[in-house]
Amino acid sequence: MRDCYHEIARWLEPLGTQVRIDAAGNLRAFYPAAESKAPRLLLGSHLDTVPNAGAYDGVLGVVLAITLLEALKGRRLPFGIEVVGFSEEEGVRFGAPFIGSRALIGRLDEQLLSLQDRQGISVRQAIEHFGLNPEEIPQVALKDDALGYVEFHIEQGPVLEKVGRPLAAVEAIAGQSRLEVTFLGRANHAGTTPMHLRHDAITAAAEWIVAVERQANEVPNLVATVGRIDAKPGATNVIAGEARLTLDVRHGSDEIRTRVVDDLVHQAEQIAKRRGLSVGLSTLLNQPAVAMDSFLVNEIAQAIQKAGCEPYRMVSGAGHDAMILAERIPSAMIFLRTPGGISHDPSESVELEVVAKAIDCGLCLLDQLASSTPFQKRMCRA
Amino acid sequence: MRDCYHEIARWLEPLGTQVRIDAAGNLRAFYPAAESKAPRLLLGSHLDTVPNAGAYDGVLGVVLAITLLEALKGRRLPFGIEVVGFSEEEGVRFGAPFIGSRALIGRLDEQLLSLQDRQGISVRQAIEHFGLNPEEIPQVALKDDALGYVEFHIEQGPVLEKVGRPLAAVEAIAGQSRLEVTFLGRANHAGTTPMHLRHDAITAAAEWIVAVERQANEVPNLVATVGRIDAKPGATNVIAGEARLTLDVRHGSDEIRTRVVDDLVHQAEQIAKRRGLSVGLSTLLNQPAVAMDSFLVNEIAQAIQKAGCEPYRMVSGAGHDAMILAERIPSAMIFLRTPGGISHDPSESVELEVVAKAIDCGLCLLDQLASSTPFQKRMCRA
Repeated sequence: MRDCYHEIARWLEPLGTQVRIDAAGNLRAFYPAAESKAPRLLLGSHLDTVPNAGAYDGVLGVVLAITLLEALKGRRLPFGIEVVGFSEEEGVRFGAPFIGSRALIGRLDEQLLSLQDRQGISVRQAIEHFGLNPEEIPQVALKDDALGYVEFHIEQGPVLEKVGRPLAAVEAIAGQSRLEVTFLGRANHAGTTPMHLRHDAITAAAEWIVAVERQANEVPNLVATVGRIDAKPGATNVIAGEARLTLDVRHGSDEIRTRVVDDLVHQAEQIAKRRGLSVGLSTLLNQPAVAMDSFLVNEIAQAIQKAGCEPYRMVSGAGHDAMILAERIPSAMIFLRTPGGISHDPSESVELEVVAKAIDCGLCLLDQLASSTPFQKRMCRA
Repeated sequence: MRDCYHEIARWLEPLGTQVRIDAAGNLRAFYPAAESKAPRLLLGSHLDTVPNAGAYDGVLGVVLAITLLEALKGRRLPFGIEVVGFSEEEGVRFGAPFIGSRALIGRLDEQLLSLQDRQGISVRQAIEHFGLNPEEIPQVALKDDALGYVEFHIEQGPVLEKVGRPLAAVEAIAGQSRLEVTFLGRANHAGTTPMHLRHDAITAAAEWIVAVERQANEVPNLVATVGRIDAKPGATNVIAGEARLTLDVRHGSDEIRTRVVDDLVHQAEQIAKRRGLSVGLSTLLNQPAVAMDSFLVNEIAQAIQKAGCEPYRMVSGAGHDAMILAERIPSAMIFLRTPGGISHDPSESVELEVVAKAIDCGLCLLDQLASSTPFQKRMCRA
């Protein structure tokens, strides 16, 4: 991370910015407005990534923010621009994602700080070891002068490629339900138990997985996934007595998501009942959808059009720092097409012409915001 | 085993039998015929069982054979009776079942003898450690004077309970196919990959498992089981790229079994193709069905009737020593009803009145065989 900060700072400093690392490990660079005491717009993404990752997830958004400052060629806008490179978005080391962005909304609390990595080092200790001061975390939080947050990020999915568009305005981050579902039947001899006398947990689970997929196919923009299945006793010649599955359901509308989850739970119960099994359920996560700021989303769609592309609006199925910042300030995202939808893999890529369009779009957006009456009004409130 | 041999021998010796342990660890007790040089009928089952087992699987068949000798009260038949308590039927220690019965048909060969247990002790060494001589294994094999083999065994399944009959004549031991089937799709983000762009190995596997069950329900007396499923990477928020399953198919007719397996393989390929996945197959086992001797089966059915029960004929879904002996001599089995179909479990049980019926049936069978013209003819050939 030290090398990363050093390199990013080396690009930022010649552009007339002040670079600092805040107490939560976020890189922050302030490019002043035309007038002092003007509010600031945040641009950025995260600097960390996953093991065996690609080169673009996160850091491309930071590099694009820097590129926009560079393209301004010293021109000052009615608002300052703060480039943010968030720390610990992925949650690899401590299991908890969004540590850097949570600090910006004042939610890097004692509970998060006491989380430990596999070596037993806490977030607090890691911050200290790095040479930062955890006592200064309260000062990391945004002040009233923060106007909004805009994040460029690769889509990490195949949608833009499929619809043949380079860029998307993200309207919302999907809400997410995660459940563990257990079918309990009766283990028995695979040779001596006739089909009609079985209480097979694997076939019950299979029937339900097919139902989950059918339901997800019927509801537009919904995704539902059974990603894990473990069956016991797990022998070739023994009918399974237990099958434990996970369900992950996501949608931009909490109402639709909740309705689908309820329906799938009901179907699991029906399948179990008809087959003489029981079913156990536990909810692992119930995270509401987060809407992006509609004013910013519209401005982004317009900027995409001005950059010569057909705008596309979509819901992000994955979580992002913008989801955290949206709790506190108007936030929005721009997705760049991801070839093959491949991410978190060394073969992750991005097309040169799509990055060029993203820069055009970003500059158009800054100009639109600089001359927008509604945005000026927000600035006055700030 | 030494305690077991000792106890069984203690019951056998007062009945006028010679008890010995053969070089393969089988307990063998010979009850002479009315005349010397008469052939012999084998009665028995296995003495070993599985860990955490019940009290009846195997040994009940040996105890019933002893009881029949006892009930003869010294009466001599035109054939001798050899009670056999087979060793190592389950295959727990060396992974290979039927070690004792294979010795009786001359198939306890070098390959089997060199199999090792978890401590690296071979079958040959185990035989030596027990104080037996592996060099004498060839003499374990049956001579030309063996007329046939009859085995009493608990059903270990729920069929007799379901049809309300105490005893069954086993017509055949089902043939068995075991396959490993692997669906290969593409792992992907559960949040960012829309349903129609997925190549989900778990949903493909689930669709196939449902098809396997449907097919098995349509073919009378066929059982088909997916007992194991492992999916990778196996994370809640990742679409599975790989699902590995086992298939176990059994039927009394090899033709039907083979046709069903071919059809299920075809369906797996169709499902994979339609979903943009590939499928890999490997055959783990392809064991033909073994018919029981039809003369003995008919005699058993008649004996069941004479014992006051409605006879029932069925195919055994599990393997038994009778399946091995059938390679060499006419063999047949009598199943006793198993409450709840529960076996290989401490709660395995058998009803007193069913055991009483089995004894009646066994005595009727011995009398029938003693006075049967076709059986006398066999005896002449022996």
